[in-house]
Formats: sequence, C-alpha cells, structure tokens
Amino acid sequence: MSSMIDLINELWFLKRELVSDDFDKALHRLAEEVPMTIHEYPSGTPVWTWTVPEKWTCHEAYLETLAGERLIDYADHPLHVVSYSLPFEGEVSREELLEHLHAHPRLPDAIPFVFKYYQRDWGLCAPQTLLDSLTDDAYRVVIRTSFDPGTLKVGEVVIPGELEESIMLVAHLCHPAMVNDDLTGVVVGLDVARSLLEGPKPKYTYRFLILPETIGSVSYLSHNEDLIPKMIGGLFLEMLGNDAPLALQQSMQPDSQVDKTLSAVMPGVDANGFVGPYRTIISNDERQFNAPGVRVPMLSLSRVENPASPKSLFEPYPEYHSSADNPKIVTQERLESARSAVLAMLQAFERNQYIVNKFKGEVFASGQGIWIDYKVNPEGHRRLFEIMERCDGERTVADIAAELEIPFQAVWEIVAQFAEKDLVSFSSAPQPTSPRR
Amino acid sequence: MSSMIDLINELWFLKRELVSDDFDKALHRLAEEVPMTIHEYPSGTPVWTWTVPEKWTCHEAYLETLAGERLIDYADHPLHVVSYSLPFEGEVSREELLEHLHAHPRLPDAIPFVFKYYQRDWGLCAPQTLLDSLTDDAYRVVIRTSFDPGTLKVGEVVIPGELEESIMLVAHLCHPAMVNDDLTGVVVGLDVARSLLEGPKPKYTYRFLILPETIGSVSYLSHNEDLIPKMIGGLFLEMLGNDAPLALQQSMQPDSQVDKTLSAVMPGVDANGFVGPYRTIISNDERQFNAPGVRVPMLSLSRVENPASPKSLFEPYPEYHSSADNPKIVTQERLESARSAVLAMLQAFERNQYIVNKFKGEVFASGQGIWIDYKVNPEGHRRLFEIMERCDGERTVADIAAELEIPFQAVWEIVAQFAEKDLVSFSSAPQPTSPRR
Amino acid sequence: MSSMIDLINELWFLKRELVSDDFDKALHRLAEEVPMTIHEYPSGTPVWTWTVPEKWTCHEAYLETLAGERLIDYADHPLHVVSYSLPFEGEVSREELLEHLHAHPRLPDAIPFVFKYYQRDWGLCAPQTLLDSLTDDAYRVVIRTSFDPGTLKVGEVVIPGELEESIMLVAHLCHPAMVNDDLTGVVVGLDVARSLLEGPKPKYTYRFLILPETIGSVSYLSHNEDLIPKMIGGLFLEMLGNDAPLALQQSMQPDSQVDKTLSAVMPGVDANGFVGPYRTIISNDERQFNAPGVRVPMLSLSRVENPASPKSLFEPYPEYHSSADNPKIVTQERLESARSAVLAMLQAFERNQYIVNKFKGEVFASGQGIWIDYKVNPEGHRRLFEIMERCDGERTVADIAAELEIPFQAVWEIVAQFAEKDLVSFSSAPQPTSPRR
Repeated sequence: MSSMIDLINELWFLKRELVSDDFDKALHRLAEEVPMTIHEYPSGTPVWTWTVPEKWTCHEAYLETLAGERLIDYADHPLHVVSYSLPFEGEVSREELLEHLHAHPRLPDAIPFVFKYYQRDWGLCAPQTLLDSLTDDAYRVVIRTSFDPGTLKVGEVVIPGELEESIMLVAHLCHPAMVNDDLTGVVVGLDVARSLLEGPKPKYTYRFLILPETIGSVSYLSHNEDLIPKMIGGLFLEMLGNDAPLALQQSMQPDSQVDKTLSAVMPGVDANGFVGPYRTIISNDERQFNAPGVRVPMLSLSRVENPASPKSLFEPYPEYHSSADNPKIVTQERLESARSAVLAMLQAFERNQYIVNKFKGEVFASGQGIWIDYKVNPEGHRRLFEIMERCDGERTVADIAAELEIPFQAVWEIVAQFAEKDLVSFSSAPQPTSPRR
Repeated sequence: MSSMIDLINELWFLKRELVSDDFDKALHRLAEEVPMTIHEYPSGTPVWTWTVPEKWTCHEAYLETLAGERLIDYADHPLHVVSYSLPFEGEVSREELLEHLHAHPRLPDAIPFVFKYYQRDWGLCAPQTLLDSLTDDAYRVVIRTSFDPGTLKVGEVVIPGELEESIMLVAHLCHPAMVNDDLTGVVVGLDVARSLLEGPKPKYTYRFLILPETIGSVSYLSHNEDLIPKMIGGLFLEMLGNDAPLALQQSMQPDSQVDKTLSAVMPGVDANGFVGPYRTIISNDERQFNAPGVRVPMLSLSRVENPASPKSLFEPYPEYHSSADNPKIVTQERLESARSAVLAMLQAFERNQYIVNKFKGEVFASGQGIWIDYKVNPEGHRRLFEIMERCDGERTVADIAAELEIPFQAVWEIVAQFAEKDLVSFSSAPQPTSPRR
Repeated sequence: MSSMIDLINELWFLKRELVSDDFDKALHRLAEEVPMTIHEYPSGTPVWTWTVPEKWTCHEAYLETLAGERLIDYADHPLHVVSYSLPFEGEVSREELLEHLHAHPRLPDAIPFVFKYYQRDWGLCAPQTLLDSLTDDAYRVVIRTSFDPGTLKVGEVVIPGELEESIMLVAHLCHPAMVNDDLTGVVVGLDVARSLLEGPKPKYTYRFLILPETIGSVSYLSHNEDLIPKMIGGLFLEMLGNDAPLALQQSMQPDSQVDKTLSAVMPGVDANGFVGPYRTIISNDERQFNAPGVRVPMLSLSRVENPASPKSLFEPYPEYHSSADNPKIVTQERLESARSAVLAMLQAFERNQYIVNKFKGEVFASGQGIWIDYKVNPEGHRRLFEIMERCDGERTVADIAAELEIPFQAVWEIVAQFAEKDLVSFSSAPQPTSPRR
C-alpha cells in the first residue's frame, strides 16, 4: 500500500489528458490500491448536452530555429504542448509563432498549463524568458498529435453502507504533470476511501469518483441517472497539499444538512480554515453536481488563501496551472491533515440526526452527572443549557450547531452524553415533541 | 394623432376638477386619440366607504379693495380659487381674509394649489407677494361657486390580451391648470396605450384608467369588483416631464413578480433612476389598489430627486402644487424616455416566466456556441453560468435577476439564447426539475 | 388586605427554603390575601428527571473561637448558613474553615446567599470583613441541620376566563431573608391577581403560581401535563422593586403573539425600559416553561440595568444574592409601576386579535371623522394609513405594531376607532380578505 506522497511521486509527471493512455495508466495504478470499478465511455458518446471527446496523443513536438537548434521539446515536459492541440508542422514567422506560443502571465520561468479542448487550434507553451529571447524572423514548428477513438474512463470506489443514500467524493486526474491541482485531491480521496473500507460498515453509501474534469462528471451522471435521487450530498477534493489553510466551499444549498454539518466541522479541523459560499473559492466538478436536474448539494474542500487576500478566483495559489506545480510544493503532513478533515466531516455527517428529547422541562443536570458549574465554566454551563433546550425532535445536531454558531463537535459531545443517559434518541426524520396549542 | 407635448399645451390650463365640465372636456378630447370607454358615476353614489361628490363649478371669483380695485381674479388663473370652495360674498376684515387666502410656503411669486374637497370652507389663493401688499383694513370677496348633481367620469382604454389577467395603468387628470402633476402621467399612459394597440396582441390584458384622484379609483374598483382578482399588477404614472431621474416605487408586495420585474428593468432605462419601497416616493391612486380587499401589487413611476436629497415626501419637485407647474418645466424628450421606460417594463413583464431547463448538468456552452471566454470577459462568463445554474423550473427571469442583483435584460439575453438553442422552455407556473430525495 | 410593601416587611426575613416550614408559613400568609390552591408534592416524588427534595431545617448554627467567642450565629441572620448545608460539628483548622466559609465577592460587609441543594456539603457565610479578621489556628463550628420528609408546596391562584387557554404568571418564594429577589415578584403577581379577580371576567384563564425555583415549576408542570397544551403564554416576575428600568426578556419564540404583544407594550410603560432576547437578562423558572416538551412562550419581567451597563448576567443589581437585598432597596412606587406594567401587558394581550377589514380600498377617513391632517400631524397621518392598509384579516394588532415598530397602544387606538365605526371586526384566527389571484 503506497502512501499519498509516494503515489504523487510515481504518477505526477504522466501526461494525464481527458482521454489518453497516461490517464488510463494512472487510473489503473490507483486501482491497485483500492477496489475500483472503471467505467468506460467511448469517444463520440452523447452525454447530456456534451459528447465524449476523442483520445488525444502527442507523439512528438518541438520548436527549432531554422538552423536546427531545438528550443522547446515535448519530451522535456508535457506542458510544452497545449492540451488537445491540433497537429502542425512548418516554418512560421515570429509573429505567427507568438500567436500560438503561450507563457505564464506571472511566472517568467514556468511553463503554463494551457488547454484548448474545444477551440481547435495548435499551440506550444514555454517560459516567458524563452519567448523574450526569440529574435529570429522565422522558426520551425513540429507538433505531431493524433485524435483517435478511445474511451473516457471514470474510476469508482464504492463503500457500501447500511442505506442506499450516498455521499459522493469526487476528484479529477486530468491535469498533466501537475501535482497540487489535481493529484492531491485524488490521493486524499483514495486514502479516505481506504480508511472507510477498513472501518465498520458506515450508515451511508460512499462513492469516490476519479475522473477527467467536467466531462467525466457529465459522463458518469448521465449514465447513472437512477443514482442521482439517492445522492444526498458530496464533496469535491482538490489542491490539498500546498501551504494554505483549508477552505470549504458550500453548495448551492447552504441550508442543506450536509452543508450545515461540514461547515460546523471546519472550526475543529483547521483553526485558520474558512467557509465560503458557492462559486467563491474554486470551480470544478462540484458544478455538475449542483447543476439543474442534478442538484446534489456538493461542497468542495481545498487549500487556498483566505479571500481577503488579493488572489483572484482563477489563481488560487501562486504555482497554479504551471510547471511550478510540482512535488516540491506539497507535503505528506498537509495531505494527512486534509484526509483527517474529510474523515471528521464524514463522521459528523454519519452522526448528524434529529435529536428527540425523552425528557420534558430542563434535565436535572446535577442529578444526571452532567452539571457544569457556571462559576467554574460559565461558557460551558451556558452551552449545556442552550443545547439542551434545542433538543426537541425538530433540530439536528448540525441545525443546533448552525443556530448557536458553535462547532459540530461541541454539540455532539453534549448530545452524546444525553444519549448515554437515555435522555434523547436519534431519528433520521423530524419528530416534534412540543405540545400542540 | 397629437404628440404628448401638444396634448399638454392644449389641455393644461383647463379647470380640471374632480367632477367638473373641464374634466369632462379634457377626457373627451383624449378619447379622440385612442378608443376609450367612459364610465360615469352620478354624484351621491356610494362607492365603498366613499360617496361620489357633486360637480363643482366656479362661475366667477375675485378679491377687490373696497375702492373696487381688483387684486385677484379667477378669470386670470384657475388656481386663484380653492378647489371645491364654498361660495362666499361680502366684505371681510384683513384678518379674516388672511384666514382664507392661501400662499405657497416656498414660492413667493406662485399661486398655490389648495383643495378642500371635504372640509367645507371658502378660500382664495395668491402669490405671497400679493398677501404681503395687503394693508387695508377690509376687502371685498366674491366667490360664485355651485355644487350640482353631475357624474364622475373614468376613462378606460382596454388593450385585450390573450389572457384575462390584466395589468392596470392609472393616471389622474383632476389637477387644474397644472402640467407635471398630473397631465404628464396621462399623456405618457395614453402614448403607451397607443403603442400597445399598434403592436401585436399582448399576453396580458391592459387597462389604462384616466380618473380623478382617489375617488376615481374607488369608484371604478367598487363597480368592477369582479375584475379585481384578475389584476395581477399595475403601474401608476405621474410627474414624468420634469428634470429629475425616474423613480420606481414598489408596491406593498415587493416580492411579487411584477415588483421584481419592474425593479430589475430600472437600471436599463435610467442610469440615474432608483427604486424605493412603498409609500416612500409618492402617494396617489396606487394606494387604493394596494389597499385591503384589493391588494393589487401596484407600483408607481415618476420623476423625483433621489430621497437622499433634502426634499420631503410632499414636495417631490420645486414647482409641485403651484402655478409654476406649467408647460415650461416639462420636455417632450423626458416624456418620451418615460414612455420608453414603461414599454420596456411591460415588455419585460410579458416575457417574465418560469424558465424550465431541458438540460441536465451544465450546458456544453462552447458546443452550443454560447461560450463566453473568462479571459476575455470574466464577468460575462460568470454571469452565464450563474444564470444557467438557476434555470430549474422554480425561478422566473425576474427571480433570477433579483437573486443576482442584475438587470432583467441581462438575464433575458442569456435565457433567450438558451431558448433559441432549445435548452429551456417557459412556463407560467413553476415546474421543478430537481430530483426528489 | 395588605399592601405589597406591608407583605414584604412581614415576610422577608423568613427562612424561606425550597421545602421548609418558613416557606409554608409565607405561602399560607399569602393565601389569606387571595383565593389560593396549595398543591403538595412529597419529598422523594419523581418529577420528570428530578426528585422532590427533603425538607431542610437549620435548628442552630454558629462559629466560635476555641475560647468560646461567638463570631457567627444563624439566629442573627438566615444567610449565615448555606442553604441545604449538611450538619457539622467540630474543631477545624483555619484553612479547613475557609474552604467552607463563604463571603461575597464584591460586598465586604454583606453576607452572601449560597445554596448547595445538590452538592452535599456543609458551609457557613459571613462578611468578608469577618473572614479577614480570622487569625486563630482553629475554630469551632456547629451546624445542626436536618433533612426530613416533607412536602414541596406550590400556591396557585386561578382567575377563570371565558376560554380555557391560559396565561401563566410565575414567581418564586424560596430565597431566604431577601426582598428584591425574590419577594417583589411574588407580591406584584399577587396584586395583579387581586386586580384581575376584581375586574370583569377576562377572555383568557390566568394561573399565578408561587413556588420554589425550578423544582417547583417542574413539580407543577409534571403533575399538570394536561394543562400544558392550553398554556398560550406566560410571564415570570422577579426583581421588581429596585432602582432600575423595567426589562422584558422574550421567550424562546420571539415571534409568538404573546412575545410580540408584550414587547410592543414596553415603550408605553417605561420610557427607559428595554426588551431583550431569551436568556440575555435573567434566568429563572421561565426556563422550565420554555424547555423541550413544554415550549410555552414565557417571558420575564424584572428591573435590571440595560445590558449596555458593565453588569454581568449573574449580577443583575448590586445587592443581588446578599444580605444587602433587604427592604431598604425597594419602594412601593416601583412595585406599583411594575404591577401597572403587567396589567397593561395582560390587557393588551386580551385585546390582541386578528383585525378583519369590513372595508375595501382606503377608508374615507374625513367622512368617517377619523382624518388626521398631514399638515398638522404628518406622523399621525402617516401612521393612520400605515395601520389602515395592514388591516386585512391576516395580521393581529401585535403583528402590525411589530411590523411598524410602534407601540401596541398606538395601533390599538386607531383600530379601536375603526371598530367603533364598524369598519373592522376582530377574530381569534386569520381571516384573509385579499382576492385570490
């Protein structure tokens, strides 16, 4: 069993494109780590309003001076060629070349990640420093790519639960030769799946999907429409190894139980972490799950600077979408704390139920051994009673946490004590206990 | 067909009182411009808690010195006599005179508009400068008015639509010898009606009412109670020619579809315009429509300074309720832009429906030719997806505009594209498409 | 019939403990003032999660030097012994003594009120100044207390109304030798009950309970579960004689009709008074009524400094829980104004109903003699119409007061005029009059 960081070191430099041999290679390697079903969708298959793309292969690509000096070579780095670039071969003027040669706007020494899945164009990428050195009138370009029938693949790890209701975990694998975005999400999800498989049978069924971004989610969802009504929530995983606090992005339904629960877990897993509304932190496959006709409340977890920082939506961390996004910027420790955070969230959601009071009036706290002296711990005393008085069969643990603006765990600790004393029971549906007037 | 400004020049100086020959004269002149039904309600008719008043006529009125020098003459200006003044004839001391002689609090050279419909008193009006010059001990007053049985008249222009559901347009005509308040609302409404009659058959039925303020609305509504449940919204028009931005006053139901729609149209029709809550901008016939037992969401459109300005509710523009409210303060251009604004609002409301997604997941935007590149137009890109993800059969165009705080037109443009691509359909009632969980 | 202040002077120094002879003595004396049922619950009776405690008696208690000099004597003041102290007799070192000898943290000359109902400990109380003078190595302690079977007593004064729906008034009587907390609440409640009994038969049934704190409420409620669904609201009374503004603490259901009504009465009864949310002002028996399985919206009225002041939740006034809480700090005048406030609140709640408009449109105000000239009284004019337009069978008097943020009385005065003119009727349930669209 390989560690998260070992898997990253092994797989990061692969040319993982939407539909590609290296994507398949990486997915099959991951399937050695955990029981996985691999769904295949052939190129050209209509998936809702989309079509599964062809397999793309870059056989060879380079930029040379007319004198034959090689300036850029795909063999050196997969990012040198625009993903899904058309083939091209010929002499081009410097002006024409510069229209097809992309550099990173902020990192002069890095190769940018550029993709043109649907724009049908050819292109190369290089550091800005190289572009600045181009003074010849003409250059020679060779891009030998091919578009062939293939199959888009989605890996699915299922952890069966007592209920058919399922929680979706999703990460994408299609970003070539990069690490934080997107391999970290994949390995954290994988490790979470391993933990769940090792533990006792959970209440909910978990489905962890590893897929190419967007088109992978659309392919899977459109072929599994019967599962959609069972999906009660989800979490997209990405950018979990860089040096930044954990950020939880809520779904389009911030009042859903999964939103309330995961949001209330955050303060307990990262003191610097934060929670933001939908579409304010990152933008990935959670969009397909939240979209019309699907409407699964899917959140996302990633590491990004607090939005108070001057970084924009499309540049969540400095090395984003460039060759600088390599193993140096991630640590096993940060991956592990992300994995623990996800497990804490899932555990909380498993526990989140309506709390049905078996008691009436306030509980005789000192008699039950749950008294907290207000002279010793005034906040604890207050919290004990604020939680107790909300145990009425109409509120879940997460509802109370949200209402009191306190961590999920703080509510759970009190409620678990009540349950131990047989003062409350739990219910998956509301069971109001207030007298009718 | 007369222009709006021509009609104003022709009709403004008439002695248009609640029930009066000149009101009838003006109304009949307007009926030459557009097919109009004139409803008549005889004096003394009970209308809900009100009674239709008598016809009021001022045959002659003046103020003289005892030496016979005429200081004020009704023949010079209709505002010289208080509307619905009792008749009076006799010598009065200066003190007594001043109790019945009204000046404008802010405009020393203007005659104020004073009405005593229900207070049963006699009175004259004059510029403050004239009052200041009164030094004699006594004066002679002659006010020859009569109260006779007549009929209150309401002009109704109906533009039949495909549905019986109707939009009410209302303007009052009972302010004698003044222009901005109230003739501008009448001519703008008339021109809107002309446009609607010239155009294709609308979805909703439109009813444009020209009436004396308050009592006209009560008379019409109490005699057409069967129509009230069909009234799905309305717009009162007044003060549309002066030099001030357009102001839309919401109804008592700011969450109604008509409120949301018209409010979201405002940014597109006047960059300086603003929207304010009910009873914060003006106070007219919209009150009768919003009132208990009627509860039609009726907004109002007028030109007033932004409430941030120091002007009070009862002085919406400097010349308000005085002889200074004459044709000089209005322009055809401002009337036309008001007319365009009303038409834009009605067009938007005709278009406002629930948007039912035929797609699931996010639409393949580039494949559908509706892609907006975020590098070129990040706001447009974001908006495209924010709108797309809200097309779920549960939101109208106006709901989405209100939720995103963007103009109605911005939503419509995107949604119209979707409809053209057969990605959405429209529905007058909600048709939720989210899977049941 | 004794005045409130006479009753205080007569009863305050009694050793009123949870279950005790002096509690019974005080309760029987109060029963001479008003018809009262006394419920008895024997020691050991299970009441929900609680158990009725034993009767506690202190026969004798003192602290002496080893030389026999008496330093503290229970005969001097009931607060010298911790309520429900265990018996103890013996020589103790100064160190051990100080662990059982309590002083007031802020008032060096006062004896603190300390109770250990459930902690099973012995203890004495004395001024800090006495503690500071203890220099001997050892002292002699004698505490002769006994725990015997007894009956917890709850006095109930019922004022039968036309309806079974009842309003609960509650005050506790178990604070020995103190006045503001808790005897003032008892005598104000008693005087309110006397007023209600003298007046015409009310609409609602009133139940005034005099009981030991917390355990008294639990005992009563658990033995009267059939009455709970009839309890539509309540008011706990305490600390009503000290020099501070009236403070109304809302229930856990701030949108209930009783919350809205009483809150809207406050501005009319104390210009300096204020309203605060549940659990922000005081903490007493209202907790048992608001608790799960009971959920009666019970507010509380007391006199406390505005929370803007630096005083904490547990020190609502300077003399709180000490021997300084004696008759000197309360006045008959403040008790009377508190009594008037309660009566005003109850009268308002009796009046609070849905207002059903018999009119449509706006009422012809001048014709009905209810016109308010906006030139003379612009605020009154505006208010008249703001209230009128909300009379729609869907709002109570309190709803309108809350919506407009004006006193209950301001709404009532207008609505009462409407009722007199037969423009509205009242209903205990909503009767919407808006046309269906």
